[in-house]
Amino acid sequence: MSTLLTTLAPTTVSLPTFEQIRDAAARIAPYAQVTPVLRSAALDALSGSELHFKCENLQRGGAFKFRGACNAVWALSDAQAAHGVVTHSSGNHGNALALAAATRGIAAHVVVPDGAVRAKVEAIERAGAILHRCAPTQAAREAMSAEVQRATGAVLVHPYADTQVMAGQGTLALELLQQVARLDALITPVGGGGLASGVAIAAHGIDPALTLFGAEPQGADDAAQSLARGARVTTVVPDTLCDGLRALIGEPNLDALRAHQVDVITVSDAETIAAMQLLWSELKLVVEVSSATVLAAVLQQRERFAGRRVGVVLTGGNVDLQALPW
Amino acid sequence: MSTLLTTLAPTTVSLPTFEQIRDAAARIAPYAQVTPVLRSAALDALSGSELHFKCENLQRGGAFKFRGACNAVWALSDAQAAHGVVTHSSGNHGNALALAAATRGIAAHVVVPDGAVRAKVEAIERAGAILHRCAPTQAAREAMSAEVQRATGAVLVHPYADTQVMAGQGTLALELLQQVARLDALITPVGGGGLASGVAIAAHGIDPALTLFGAEPQGADDAAQSLARGARVTTVVPDTLCDGLRALIGEPNLDALRAHQVDVITVSDAETIAAMQLLWSELKLVVEVSSATVLAAVLQQRERFAGRRVGVVLTGGNVDLQALPW
Repeated sequence: MSTLLTTLAPTTVSLPTFEQIRDAAARIAPYAQVTPVLRSAALDALSGSELHFKCENLQRGGAFKFRGACNAVWALSDAQAAHGVVTHSSGNHGNALALAAATRGIAAHVVVPDGAVRAKVEAIERAGAILHRCAPTQAAREAMSAEVQRATGAVLVHPYADTQVMAGQGTLALELLQQVARLDALITPVGGGGLASGVAIAAHGIDPALTLFGAEPQGADDAAQSLARGARVTTVVPDTLCDGLRALIGEPNLDALRAHQVDVITVSDAETIAAMQLLWSELKLVVEVSSATVLAAVLQQRERFAGRRVGVVLTGGNVDLQALPW
Repeated sequence: MSTLLTTLAPTTVSLPTFEQIRDAAARIAPYAQVTPVLRSAALDALSGSELHFKCENLQRGGAFKFRGACNAVWALSDAQAAHGVVTHSSGNHGNALALAAATRGIAAHVVVPDGAVRAKVEAIERAGAILHRCAPTQAAREAMSAEVQRATGAVLVHPYADTQVMAGQGTLALELLQQVARLDALITPVGGGGLASGVAIAAHGIDPALTLFGAEPQGADDAAQSLARGARVTTVVPDTLCDGLRALIGEPNLDALRAHQVDVITVSDAETIAAMQLLWSELKLVVEVSSATVLAAVLQQRERFAGRRVGVVLTGGNVDLQALPW
């Protein structure tokens, strides 16, 4: 995922309805994992709250992204699908789209800028995608993506400013609220906002009293700034280790955060790395650094979560074990 | 756990019956976690078999040891329990016994030799145990343990050569075979053999046709040697990174392995470390090095497991994140 992708988003993208999210859940059920919810007595004690961790690192492809990509792929008509899908993410969304396309037996084109992390590119290739390499500039990515669309008729699946992608990510909240009765609050990381917006619509569709939180790196706090100013801030230059959260919040995604009063808490990378180690050592889960922002936020604002039952979304587990951030 | 502990084992220890294992399951149910069984398409593809990972790293205390310790603690009469329990393991069993004693509100005495890993000793202390420090020799440990028994009347709970401990570990197999129907084979790591023996009795009590395997480090292959010679080999000096598997196989434990035709596969530490990285990266689980021996064995003997449904027991997840073995 890259901040550059935002420019490719259609100018008007509808937010999914609760009904569309329920449809998405049925659509992806044959392909997606029902991920477990885990707890830790040690982390409950440390936070003073009751934490229910939704383990999307155990999702197919190692991240929640499969939900949205799978829904987008299967929401296409047969005629549309015949031409395949395209995106230009060299991260979890590119991999998820390749895996999702494979479930429908259609082509996935992934535009990969030179210099992308080799391990991630290899994973996308293993998942069966057709790679299109380009120079690492916004112009080159857009040009290559447009060229692929022209040449193949493939449908662009944007990583977060896409109705069906948001609906797919929202299925995670439907699942969590079935698994754990009566949550008081729910917190997700915020990058482009596909997850946070889908989850907000789904969660409030079930329980309008649920308090919603987002966690954002201080070095990529455009969502927090945008909510504070009441207008989308696009001038933030991301500076954070959380590679999954560097995207600027999308326009429809920001609308959803505003409408559902999602409170975005910003955390430093140091707080996130400390939380990541706690998740590994206490929960025994491999989660990527972006996923740890949520626990960092809960621990930073302990008094706001104290005594509450909190759903905590762990978004992914795709980590380079040779380059851990501690 | 230490090889030195074997000498403290009572000379005649009965193997648990299937009935005793079922009793153990009922006894520990209020305290132990029902741990999930996870799968990985990537690891299935790599092994050519269908792997069902039983995640005891998600057990209370981060290891299966809680099952045996908890059963031993709750199998005591009130009169016995009143005096507490004692062991001298500075590893997962010491921690598990402390946690188990806390569930019954009785004292746990843990004899800790000087030089034990600080993080593990701190965990035992956090779990509420009374620590008794001694010199790092067999004589000092036995003397200190005997002294604690004399002074307090505490009951010794041996880490593996103990009927109720074996019964408790066996509950893991009852649970796994309820969670996954129709396994062809089951594999556990082999150290002192408390787990392997309890699991063998439990598994064959349910399905006598199940093929049972053990995985043992080449540098601590006393169980494999003992089975090959038909007599317990006690001359092996452990030389392996798998700190949880350095104990010599217990006498009753070896009897059980023999009676249930457990086939012990030996693996090099290099194979184990490679398997550990696969478990972290593909299964997204933090498992300790000893736990990875089982996947190493399956990958080493690919043709023997090919096309079969295999239960793979991941024993623990207590790892020093600052000192990973790669």
